[in-house]
Amino acid sequence: MKKYTSVDDIIDLPELLDLAASFKKEPFQSEQLGKRKTIGLLFFNPSLRTRLSTQKAASNLGMEAMVMNLNSEGWLLEFEDGVVMDGTKAEHIREAAAVVSQYCDILAVRSFPTLTDKEKDMQEYVISAFVKFASVPVISLEGSSEHPLQALADALTIAQFKKTDRPKVVLTWAPHPKALPHAVPNSFVKIMKRSDVDFVIANPEGYNLDPSVTEGVEILHNQKEAFANADFIYAKNWSSFETYGQVLSTDESWTVSEKRMRLTNDAYFMHCLPVRRNMIVTDAVLDSDRSIVIEQANNRTFAAQAILSKMLQHE
Amino acid sequence: MKKYTSVDDIIDLPELLDLAASFKKEPFQSEQLGKRKTIGLLFFNPSLRTRLSTQKAASNLGMEAMVMNLNSEGWLLEFEDGVVMDGTKAEHIREAAAVVSQYCDILAVRSFPTLTDKEKDMQEYVISAFVKFASVPVISLEGSSEHPLQALADALTIAQFKKTDRPKVVLTWAPHPKALPHAVPNSFVKIMKRSDVDFVIANPEGYNLDPSVTEGVEILHNQKEAFANADFIYAKNWSSFETYGQVLSTDESWTVSEKRMRLTNDAYFMHCLPVRRNMIVTDAVLDSDRSIVIEQANNRTFAAQAILSKMLQHE
Amino acid sequence: MKKYTSVDDIIDLPELLDLAASFKKEPFQSEQLGKRKTIGLLFFNPSLRTRLSTQKAASNLGMEAMVMNLNSEGWLLEFEDGVVMDGTKAEHIREAAAVVSQYCDILAVRSFPTLTDKEKDMQEYVISAFVKFASVPVISLEGSSEHPLQALADALTIAQFKKTDRPKVVLTWAPHPKALPHAVPNSFVKIMKRSDVDFVIANPEGYNLDPSVTEGVEILHNQKEAFANADFIYAKNWSSFETYGQVLSTDESWTVSEKRMRLTNDAYFMHCLPVRRNMIVTDAVLDSDRSIVIEQANNRTFAAQAILSKMLQHE
Repeated sequence: MKKYTSVDDIIDLPELLDLAASFKKEPFQSEQLGKRKTIGLLFFNPSLRTRLSTQKAASNLGMEAMVMNLNSEGWLLEFEDGVVMDGTKAEHIREAAAVVSQYCDILAVRSFPTLTDKEKDMQEYVISAFVKFASVPVISLEGSSEHPLQALADALTIAQFKKTDRPKVVLTWAPHPKALPHAVPNSFVKIMKRSDVDFVIANPEGYNLDPSVTEGVEILHNQKEAFANADFIYAKNWSSFETYGQVLSTDESWTVSEKRMRLTNDAYFMHCLPVRRNMIVTDAVLDSDRSIVIEQANNRTFAAQAILSKMLQHE
Repeated sequence: MKKYTSVDDIIDLPELLDLAASFKKEPFQSEQLGKRKTIGLLFFNPSLRTRLSTQKAASNLGMEAMVMNLNSEGWLLEFEDGVVMDGTKAEHIREAAAVVSQYCDILAVRSFPTLTDKEKDMQEYVISAFVKFASVPVISLEGSSEHPLQALADALTIAQFKKTDRPKVVLTWAPHPKALPHAVPNSFVKIMKRSDVDFVIANPEGYNLDPSVTEGVEILHNQKEAFANADFIYAKNWSSFETYGQVLSTDESWTVSEKRMRLTNDAYFMHCLPVRRNMIVTDAVLDSDRSIVIEQANNRTFAAQAILSKMLQHE
Repeated sequence: MKKYTSVDDIIDLPELLDLAASFKKEPFQSEQLGKRKTIGLLFFNPSLRTRLSTQKAASNLGMEAMVMNLNSEGWLLEFEDGVVMDGTKAEHIREAAAVVSQYCDILAVRSFPTLTDKEKDMQEYVISAFVKFASVPVISLEGSSEHPLQALADALTIAQFKKTDRPKVVLTWAPHPKALPHAVPNSFVKIMKRSDVDFVIANPEGYNLDPSVTEGVEILHNQKEAFANADFIYAKNWSSFETYGQVLSTDESWTVSEKRMRLTNDAYFMHCLPVRRNMIVTDAVLDSDRSIVIEQANNRTFAAQAILSKMLQHE
């Protein structure tokens, strides 16, 4: 595995999920694999789960983790080619990525979208540049258009909790006060399309995700209809894709409530966290025994560990 | 030991001090104990000694440390229940604590008081919430009302330097330009009350500490009188507890000076550091051979190591 | 080696370069040497290469690294003696250095110059204070007047790429929008003066470096002349030393271009990075096969490893 910046980089999903499940059972089974190896965790944006779970995954494999908050601890980076660097940016990504590749065996990068420059965001501007100029494998710790480690943990969680061979999974938009990225829903849609599930997306009009991502997936603009007989409700806010980066609605009728959950087949509730209580989901649902968000977060470690072990083994 | 957020959590102080002293002699005696174990060090406030000594203590026990500055690196946390999270706080402590518990075997948290909301501060608002919602042991790296790791190091220092079975120990208020918390003096008072010492507090009027903490301890408003025959002078500033969080005085006659130290029984000088020179204490006293502040800071490592080893052994 | 804060601290340069080269061949040859040892990496200023390469070097030797950004994570430090600390600085360097020395076996500190107070900068104000008050060896991760780890990596790079016994090396000033320190050129000059090279400095008038550093070195104010027959071109900007800390020129005719490089003996291009593209050097030169800046950065790890291993062995 040379890079993991998109769900598209997964070749054999069932095998990868088995590997992650195996690490969940025995986290230290490969603790010699990463000996003398170093992962650089580079953050342009804040992170709690992603950072700690990836650091823990690396540690379980015997790797050393070096964490850097690039905006506050390092130099501002230039990503454009051919410019005269006479402004505030002290270093070009070409040098930064090549140099850091020499100190690390794997690079992992978090970089959120602008939500104003659609083209740049869709090109996965920052992380693509790291992939291009690094000489070691690159992992996305959430990019502008995908969050593939999250998606792998999500699929692992569904695999572990499902009670039928082909559960019904609903990804539902839910309200949020701020404009949020499309990375999590995009990667979730991609991995669900490759899973043995009945998959439906529910979102208000104007909130359809990138059609090249959702192609072939049923999209409903009625949450109640979507929830019928669902086995898993995955809630998430995102800003508009069409009216790029805008908050068109904070309609509370889309908040996932107990009443709404009663329409489902006693569904599990999922969210990638952090979650805004009583905006995305009510306290009652989140604190109920159907909520598996904590276990879902726990699976982040083993998803990351599966990817890291693939990279360490040059598979 | 399920938590160490207060001196009250200590069951057998002499045994704990012996354990700390034993780690001071042989720091690596239990370096297998923390193998494959991770401590999360979570900071809401700056730290030098506490962070490095706890990280060193963890390392001596073979543990991995993951350090996070929550305000700058993570998400702003909501601690209130039942609120609609439509403001700046992205994550609720319920999820944050539960999730981080899955990546760490022990959580350690630093959170200073507001010094404006007495009730919240006395409830140890932030750290109590971590204790409540974490599924692993929680250590206070200084909370709003206690600094129990400091107190344990202080007691260890007195145990090592005392020349009589029952030395006289004076905690004296000293001036400082800013409003400071009560955590250090509270924990020191609590641990001295459980130690075989003659203990006296000296502070100006208006500066009495929480009476529920100082109950049974002699409080003098005259520093000279308090210093008579003292074997240990522990200087510390705190803001008023009665007129909560206010600086009522910066009276320089309370600065610990050579002249004042001459009233003692050739006493040792202690302070938790960082210390404001020529405010709290004069250069002459701090740089004299009676000052044991550096050794006191050194003991932080072994105090932390004792607590961590107890937690790792589920004692 | 008790300290490495200046190239002057090197006793036997050829032996040190051999040691670094040996670590480059076998990075893990001494991985037991730093077992149970801790290095404190203390930053007053941003760092990418220096931090990661030193952390990697420590890790290769089996050491634990504790990284602290002192301005954001710790307390503001007072460096003056005798002051009444009633301002914003909470801790004196005397205590800070002494305390941290107890948690770490080696301290490494980065502190840039003021570029306004020449005397303070030349005294290496901050790092000298750490040397004075620390009880363990101190390494400069770039001070106000020297960057000795960089210089060692530079000398290692020249040793590995040189094709003649005595190559011609040119240090050339190049334009930059901001006022930069003298640390890198100073240390480079010092190490070249001790190397078997023909060494020339090229800079515009008004940009002569500290004459006590450049004593005995030819300084040309004509870049073309200097480049003739050069085997290595080392580009670097610095602010004026005479008109201290000022930018007197951003003359683009000093930008290292392909045309200018054609005057050389097919010279290698070097720079310490981060480098401003099309200010210091054109894209064409930096992206050419004569550019060895990435390998030069790679050598930072092994230079640091050589110094650390000397300190760990008390040599």
